Amino acid sequence: MAKDFPTREENYTQWYNDLVIKADLAENSAVRGCMVIKPYGYAIWEKMQSTLDKMFKDTGHVNAYFPLFIPKSFFSREADHVEGFAKECAVVTHYRLKNSPDGKGVVVDEDAKLEEELIIRPTSETIIWDTYKNWIQSYRDLPLLVNQWANVVRWEMRTRLFLRTTEFLWQEGHTAHATKEEAIEETKIILNIYADFAEKWMALPVLKGSKSPNERFAGAVETYCIESLMQDGKALQVGTSHFLGQNFAKAFDVKFLSKENKLEYVWATSWGVSTRLMGALIMAHSDDNGLVLPPKLAPIQVVIVPIYKKEEQLNQISEVAQKIKKSLTDKGITVKYDDRDTFKPGWKFSEYEFKGVPVRLAIGPRDLENNTVEVARRDTLEKEVLQVTDIENKIEHLLEQIQNNLYQKALSFREDNTYAVDTWEEFKDIIENKGGFVLAHWDGTSETEEKIKNETKTTIRTIPLDNKPEKGRCIYTGKPSKQRVVFAKAY
Amino acid sequence: MAKDFPTREENYTQWYNDLVIKADLAENSAVRGCMVIKPYGYAIWEKMQSTLDKMFKDTGHVNAYFPLFIPKSFFSREADHVEGFAKECAVVTHYRLKNSPDGKGVVVDEDAKLEEELIIRPTSETIIWDTYKNWIQSYRDLPLLVNQWANVVRWEMRTRLFLRTTEFLWQEGHTAHATKEEAIEETKIILNIYADFAEKWMALPVLKGSKSPNERFAGAVETYCIESLMQDGKALQVGTSHFLGQNFAKAFDVKFLSKENKLEYVWATSWGVSTRLMGALIMAHSDDNGLVLPPKLAPIQVVIVPIYKKEEQLNQISEVAQKIKKSLTDKGITVKYDDRDTFKPGWKFSEYEFKGVPVRLAIGPRDLENNTVEVARRDTLEKEVLQVTDIENKIEHLLEQIQNNLYQKALSFREDNTYAVDTWEEFKDIIENKGGFVLAHWDGTSETEEKIKNETKTTIRTIPLDNKPEKGRCIYTGKPSKQRVVFAKAY
Repeated sequence: MAKDFPTREENYTQWYNDLVIKADLAENSAVRGCMVIKPYGYAIWEKMQSTLDKMFKDTGHVNAYFPLFIPKSFFSREADHVEGFAKECAVVTHYRLKNSPDGKGVVVDEDAKLEEELIIRPTSETIIWDTYKNWIQSYRDLPLLVNQWANVVRWEMRTRLFLRTTEFLWQEGHTAHATKEEAIEETKIILNIYADFAEKWMALPVLKGSKSPNERFAGAVETYCIESLMQDGKALQVGTSHFLGQNFAKAFDVKFLSKENKLEYVWATSWGVSTRLMGALIMAHSDDNGLVLPPKLAPIQVVIVPIYKKEEQLNQISEVAQKIKKSLTDKGITVKYDDRDTFKPGWKFSEYEFKGVPVRLAIGPRDLENNTVEVARRDTLEKEVLQVTDIENKIEHLLEQIQNNLYQKALSFREDNTYAVDTWEEFKDIIENKGGFVLAHWDGTSETEEKIKNETKTTIRTIPLDNKPEKGRCIYTGKPSKQRVVFAKAY
Repeated sequence: MAKDFPTREENYTQWYNDLVIKADLAENSAVRGCMVIKPYGYAIWEKMQSTLDKMFKDTGHVNAYFPLFIPKSFFSREADHVEGFAKECAVVTHYRLKNSPDGKGVVVDEDAKLEEELIIRPTSETIIWDTYKNWIQSYRDLPLLVNQWANVVRWEMRTRLFLRTTEFLWQEGHTAHATKEEAIEETKIILNIYADFAEKWMALPVLKGSKSPNERFAGAVETYCIESLMQDGKALQVGTSHFLGQNFAKAFDVKFLSKENKLEYVWATSWGVSTRLMGALIMAHSDDNGLVLPPKLAPIQVVIVPIYKKEEQLNQISEVAQKIKKSLTDKGITVKYDDRDTFKPGWKFSEYEFKGVPVRLAIGPRDLENNTVEVARRDTLEKEVLQVTDIENKIEHLLEQIQNNLYQKALSFREDNTYAVDTWEEFKDIIENKGGFVLAHWDGTSETEEKIKNETKTTIRTIPLDNKPEKGRCIYTGKPSKQRVVFAKAY
């Protein structure tokens, strides 16, 4: 465990990269752009997965699994989709290796060339809608509410652990509906699930909104998203939920016989969140002392460290510690009792602090005498000495407090870094010198959006769903506008 | 739902293929050899996953995730491994597509050729041991008990849903140890987990044993396995656990400083089960009426079907059904109440029978009067009328009975189809005309094993761990032998 990494102030980018690696969350692999998710990081991802999976199932969704490979020709079927996705991707061209002539290794067997190349899925709309064609005949087969947990590959030139990697893990929902209204309703149900998950589990406040046409998913009619603000004032898109209209149904000829006995194209949605959530979680709460994790997603919620000199003391402390551990475990709290004799208490303290364990309990000889325990919380770094009596309820309450505190802190940060701006000078000034979310009027055209992006590297992150109508003039062109939209630099 | 499929007697292969497709478990995809796992099939796989995952974690293992891609050169590092794995596999050679000159599609961009080709993992020993090199320095870093749930690809020429597919899902454990003894102990811990899972959850009796050198995993010093017998008399390898010695540590130069301050190579194991388990589960218990699922892995354990003519009757029945559903759900039993008015009760009966739902409850007007319910069990197809009183305990007991019955039935089948054989004539006769497990003496040489395989398509499935020593003469060469081994034709 090492604290020799820059503060956020010194170098935010390096702070993040070092944190991910030194806190044992993930690391770069031998394959360019692909990461190894280490056990501690993967345990957080598993908590995210199981929580989201339950939320999907509670709203009637089921899981399935579709092929990793997509025939190249499938991408050309949907015109916008091919522009967006069938470019930077991994292409399988051969299916066999053979011993090299020099006997020293293996080479590609040119006789084993595929007739049609296979693309590693960057997203699965095409292969799934090709499959749905056979699953859907009548309105009775609808809605189809399917989700998949899978790996996908997008050949990224610049990668960063969790935030942008060539291979990443995600879930992708693909639903089919009889009506447009029902499909739009579905995208909103999912958007709300994503927002709930971000706010209640990740302690991450998010804006719910739609994307401008420039930022839409390739093939979507409307893209809804949740957007959050990181500590460096940059926005991070946390999740997206797309209304695909009948685009994929038309591309793959998926029709159904309606109740009125008419043959109609099916309406579609797709939606996803990925291991990028890990990046958001890390960046949102962590500090210069290391990782800070919200209790609901922490693999270890409470760690107990014994402080002793003699073996005999350890035995007495262990007895108390095990009792406390049991009373917490019975409450559903995840506890680790670290009685390893290969490390000193001070080393352990800083290790668990660095790894973001929300609550640390320390028990020493004096605590035994007084029936107390020292309680340290990771979010504020405050310590207090508590009576052991009723400790399980005190800790349960403390964990809730920490969860709420992290959310409130992140919310205050966002509020403090959200600016309503009315002049172009002010806009540029804030973007350049402060960062954050900038609420400004926009004339609604892609051209203006593009120009603002070129001049300031800022994009429209979202058009909030709960926007109140407000007449104004576009920050850039001065043309009339009906509402403010959210601009920011983004990950 | 359709029963128009052959009986096992008529055409076992076709019976299996039809069953998988018609029971909505899986289907072939647009990509040759790759399957789509449908929601009903995937729900069974999820139950398998969560059960195994808990068993792994209870024995100290943690999950992680390693890249999908493996640099080609990695395979050449371990001599045996390259022979076994780096041949029939998917090879990524390019990372970009571009619009085709005719504007009608996309083509591979020849400018985006990878310097070194990437192989889609057929198994991950190489990339993982390359990673472990940085994780392991001292004995304090050991043991490393890591598992991964992932997709893998092996380019198979002949594929069958679940049993052999180009892409499949699996878990692969990769552990690192300070001593040989500890590594061997680990392979046995896992073998016992696999056997427990097969017997207690899948209701599938298995033989635990080791493989002959010919059948060993490429790169292993010893391969342990569990083997089961299917209804057509063919063996199916359910899971394997490999002791890898120091082969991969040497290939990837993974050394650790021992307690005695010596630099030593690390000892390794790897072990896995895959979606092939689904094939075993389906083939082991199902019958000519469709799927038969052991209650512990059935996505729906109990289905309730109302039988009514008038809307008013349905309301009354629904009230009772919902009460029963709740009392069962409270016991942790998964219940579906199917009150759809788009299908008739008879249709529903045969649908759930076909899909292997262990228990079906039917409630009609007469049942309302008598406070009864008709209970049908899928395994024996028996029906009885029970009083509703205390129904949750009766059903819970019945589910246990069904689970046990399926196991006992499969065990009896295996016992009835296991033959101790002492002459070559008898051996050939049984293999040709009866199938099953044949216990016979073998001289211990690969040559003899090879000859027997060539003449009879039979392989040594396993050398049982609990084998009693018994002197005899090799069934083929007449040379001395110390024990019987298990021969069979295999999937």
